[in-house]
Amino acid sequence: MGLFTKDIATLDDLFVHTLQDIYYAEHQITKALPKMIAKATAPALRKGFELHLKETEGQIARLERVFEMHGQKPKAVTCPAIDGIIKETNEIAGEISDKAVLDAALIASAQAVEHYEITRYGTLIAWAEELGHADIAKVLGETLAEEKATDEKLSKLATSKINAKAELAEA
Amino acid sequence: MGLFTKDIATLDDLFVHTLQDIYYAEHQITKALPKMIAKATAPALRKGFELHLKETEGQIARLERVFEMHGQKPKAVTCPAIDGIIKETNEIAGEISDKAVLDAALIASAQAVEHYEITRYGTLIAWAEELGHADIAKVLGETLAEEKATDEKLSKLATSKINAKAELAEA
Repeated sequence: MGLFTKDIATLDDLFVHTLQDIYYAEHQITKALPKMIAKATAPALRKGFELHLKETEGQIARLERVFEMHGQKPKAVTCPAIDGIIKETNEIAGEISDKAVLDAALIASAQAVEHYEITRYGTLIAWAEELGHADIAKVLGETLAEEKATDEKLSKLATSKINAKAELAEA
Repeated sequence: MGLFTKDIATLDDLFVHTLQDIYYAEHQITKALPKMIAKATAPALRKGFELHLKETEGQIARLERVFEMHGQKPKAVTCPAIDGIIKETNEIAGEISDKAVLDAALIASAQAVEHYEITRYGTLIAWAEELGHADIAKVLGETLAEEKATDEKLSKLATSKINAKAELAEA
């Protein structure tokens, strides 16, 4: 959407714009995750990120299906929110000298990404239902369930392993 | 924290850095909310944002208490994530021509802010517990409960009123 023009007149326009926003965000996440995998030390964390990368690729394909169901070509619009979250991930990673502490920070960053996705997909589903697109809401619901499951898995990994290792780091 | 220096060596350093990050974020939210109140049309939404502004001021005071409990002076570090989320809020608001659709977008933006706070406070609580600061975890838990309740209230307001009005907008 062009800045300084009022291109969004209806809830359907807003729905499509937000689809384009999350489509951009998912692509940025597929670019960020390999860097996070390279920085992670704990094997369980690396494995978790690798699985999430594959899942994200599936979520992009699912979004492309949703665009098609809605009669649109897939298109991405810049999403300053995900850009900011990823920028913060990179900045904090660059400031950490201990590998176990870096793992704790990487999990926290990944959860910030998950929560951005959870809020956007939640909104998109509510709008799709309001617009009478129960079929689209159902497809988006599959992704939302995955994002919530990933967030919970990351929480468990953090509190069962990663944080305890980070706590052993000495100044 | 200075960029390009490795200032974070321990989980405690990371905890303090993230406290400073959310302290900055809460301040940015108190600056963003009055603009969102000015843009909102539905009285229930304006009222919700006004209540949340007061709540955010209380959360800042609570963070100052946490800094003190931890023997630190309150300090803010730039948080690119919240800056990105707020930038996106302003950009999308500027592209919407219909007031009811703008309300729907404002709720979605507010929920993106809530989810950023939910993930950060969740992480801070887990780290405080790992570091043996059950007292600090408890205080942060009060804010986390507020953020989750606000997010749920916004969801209800969206699905019970705001989205239906937005759906009536015509191109």
